[in-house]
Amino acid sequence: MYLLSVREHIMIAHSFVGAIFGPAQGLHGATFVVDAEFRRRQLSPEGLVVDIGAASVLLKDVLAPLNYQNLDELPEFKGRNTTTEFLAGDIHRKLAAGIRAGALGADGPALDSLRITLSESHVAWGAYDAPLNEGAK
Amino acid sequence: MYLLSVREHIMIAHSFVGAIFGPAQGLHGATFVVDAEFRRRQLSPEGLVVDIGAASVLLKDVLAPLNYQNLDELPEFKGRNTTTEFLAGDIHRKLAAGIRAGALGADGPALDSLRITLSESHVAWGAYDAPLNEGAK
Amino acid sequence: MYLLSVREHIMIAHSFVGAIFGPAQGLHGATFVVDAEFRRRQLSPEGLVVDIGAASVLLKDVLAPLNYQNLDELPEFKGRNTTTEFLAGDIHRKLAAGIRAGALGADGPALDSLRITLSESHVAWGAYDAPLNEGAK
Amino acid sequence: MYLLSVREHIMIAHSFVGAIFGPAQGLHGATFVVDAEFRRRQLSPEGLVVDIGAASVLLKDVLAPLNYQNLDELPEFKGRNTTTEFLAGDIHRKLAAGIRAGALGADGPALDSLRITLSESHVAWGAYDAPLNEGAK
Amino acid sequence: MYLLSVREHIMIAHSFVGAIFGPAQGLHGATFVVDAEFRRRQLSPEGLVVDIGAASVLLKDVLAPLNYQNLDELPEFKGRNTTTEFLAGDIHRKLAAGIRAGALGADGPALDSLRITLSESHVAWGAYDAPLNEGAK
Amino acid sequence: MYLLSVREHIMIAHSFVGAIFGPAQGLHGATFVVDAEFRRRQLSPEGLVVDIGAASVLLKDVLAPLNYQNLDELPEFKGRNTTTEFLAGDIHRKLAAGIRAGALGADGPALDSLRITLSESHVAWGAYDAPLNEGAK
Repeated sequence: MYLLSVREHIMIAHSFVGAIFGPAQGLHGATFVVDAEFRRRQLSPEGLVVDIGAASVLLKDVLAPLNYQNLDELPEFKGRNTTTEFLAGDIHRKLAAGIRAGALGADGPALDSLRITLSESHVAWGAYDAPLNEGAK
Repeated sequence: MYLLSVREHIMIAHSFVGAIFGPAQGLHGATFVVDAEFRRRQLSPEGLVVDIGAASVLLKDVLAPLNYQNLDELPEFKGRNTTTEFLAGDIHRKLAAGIRAGALGADGPALDSLRITLSESHVAWGAYDAPLNEGAK
Repeated sequence: MYLLSVREHIMIAHSFVGAIFGPAQGLHGATFVVDAEFRRRQLSPEGLVVDIGAASVLLKDVLAPLNYQNLDELPEFKGRNTTTEFLAGDIHRKLAAGIRAGALGADGPALDSLRITLSESHVAWGAYDAPLNEGAK
Repeated sequence: MYLLSVREHIMIAHSFVGAIFGPAQGLHGATFVVDAEFRRRQLSPEGLVVDIGAASVLLKDVLAPLNYQNLDELPEFKGRNTTTEFLAGDIHRKLAAGIRAGALGADGPALDSLRITLSESHVAWGAYDAPLNEGAK
Repeated sequence: MYLLSVREHIMIAHSFVGAIFGPAQGLHGATFVVDAEFRRRQLSPEGLVVDIGAASVLLKDVLAPLNYQNLDELPEFKGRNTTTEFLAGDIHRKLAAGIRAGALGADGPALDSLRITLSESHVAWGAYDAPLNEGAK
Repeated sequence: MYLLSVREHIMIAHSFVGAIFGPAQGLHGATFVVDAEFRRRQLSPEGLVVDIGAASVLLKDVLAPLNYQNLDELPEFKGRNTTTEFLAGDIHRKLAAGIRAGALGADGPALDSLRITLSESHVAWGAYDAPLNEGAK
């Protein structure tokens, strides 16, 4: 399997609901360094997993509506805890949709799977990893 | 698959038996930066793979008896080379036991697999990765 | 000059005032990985710049009132933009006060200077660096 | 599964053919930080995945003919775009051949799979991951 | 002193003249991860060392004519070895000129010094550090 | 000022004397990732701070007698706590002596200062920084 990964970051505010979250129940925030790792069984004729430029644009486009936001106020996350692992799944779902919509051109249908990793600090990260024809559940 | 990883570190002394180890046959030591990566198919109702606080406590508890020790003197490692990859398996086994004993509460039985990675320098790391119902062999 | 550095992190929400901040005028957040770097001309009799345990406790104590907070709601920051570089200065000032108050014991008066670095992502960081008898201005 | 990874780097020049590559069609270059990650189901009697010294020598030997070269002038790459992911596959193929030729001694046949990762910057990397009895396609 | 640092990268080809360079006398290449670290004694009224957006644009503008180039073919480097440390000085000189030309607005004249660091691999980096009213010599 | 830095690592055992060290009074160990950062006001005619190959050889030579050792048993450290910051000073002193003895050829006398940084984990490092004509005190 061939893999290619590109990196961006977002800076968001949010809070969590549930005693398990302790002080993180208050409004706080995070920088998430986001890695999108694309996988493909055979390279394209040009020798690529995906066009790295197109992959970066797609990742930026998916992240833009989240960046510099208070996630508590976004209707799409109403009633959900936007944990690191949940957001990794959410971003996976949105990239998968973008790929199905043609954002990566002919490379899109050739992709096998995708992993989204969100590093939240030097000591913790979360991720979602799934085949692309299955999407994030 | 959803993933969550937490990081701790230990500083230990040890020596190895066998000509293959060259100068590492002498008593020396290492800092191991330890990543414990938990995997789960569906998130908990709170949106979690595991409670990151509980996971950190469990990892610290498992590492505490090794930290600041000369591993050559611990009875449990008698006759074994405590290589990076062996220790990754050992720590995996102990975390798996802690999870079975309830250290992660209701999240424990929902976990699918666990990877323990020990980074020993900027140029080398070892790991053990296995399903949680199987444990480290 | 001898140096010793310890690392912690905080996760905060905040917003900025001023057109120059663009989308960062909205409520968002950040993870700040905080390095406190202590400097001293001669080592202590034990061979130390500072007791690394005491330094970590002091840094954690200084960061605790900021961690998991919305900085916009803290009276001490009223009317200030809590930029990365401003916060580095603020944390410097508070560590310097803690050192003057004896938090590092006999090592405190022997220190020459202190640098506080806040890494906000994989592409940007801010810092404040000043002698300890002068403090952050 | 047990894993062990070692790291080296190469500094090469190359150019790409195809409009998709934009400015990278011109002669440019890259530092590739190369991680070779070996996997094995059971440890050796010495407690190893592979002898880390032998693994490093093999990796260096495989990389030496590429290091400090203009890849456009190497006959083996004639008519190919030496993209990050292509090179990961190429290095995988060469390590697999070295292992089959006995470079890792008795540890070689015991290996299950191998991953080669080439980090090209702080924001992008490519890799090839495959079983060792199958090789890079 | 307050500090703020932003990061970009370039991928270039070049060769060196002189027996001291060994195999690096041949045409090869490098990824340089470039950190531009701005220093200022007092923060701006907005709480900034520099506008991070303007700083990033200036750094990108200075790097653009070098990125994806064979430095051996650029007239400005004729007869010079474009070593890591030389390039750090060159980029420093160009940023300093941009600042003097007003690229950072009112923040420019308030800056005290600038450091440019080029990381060429996981084991080596070069830098140039100088006051801004003096420039790179 | 121009700077160039090279990296190596050592893996050692040691123990500390003094209640302040808590559990680190027992025999334990550490990996130290060692950065040697050379500084020079003007580049050499070849465009260098130092020959990176010669600098790496010197650093390796200085570290070799420490690597894979129990520092408690080395006569040179008798009665000393081999803390991270102390070792940084010790390695600085030895590199400075090597430079004075000609290990870096004509580049040696042109050097202004040297910094040795020892990273002991992902959360702590120590260093010693001094002019080269003064040496480590």
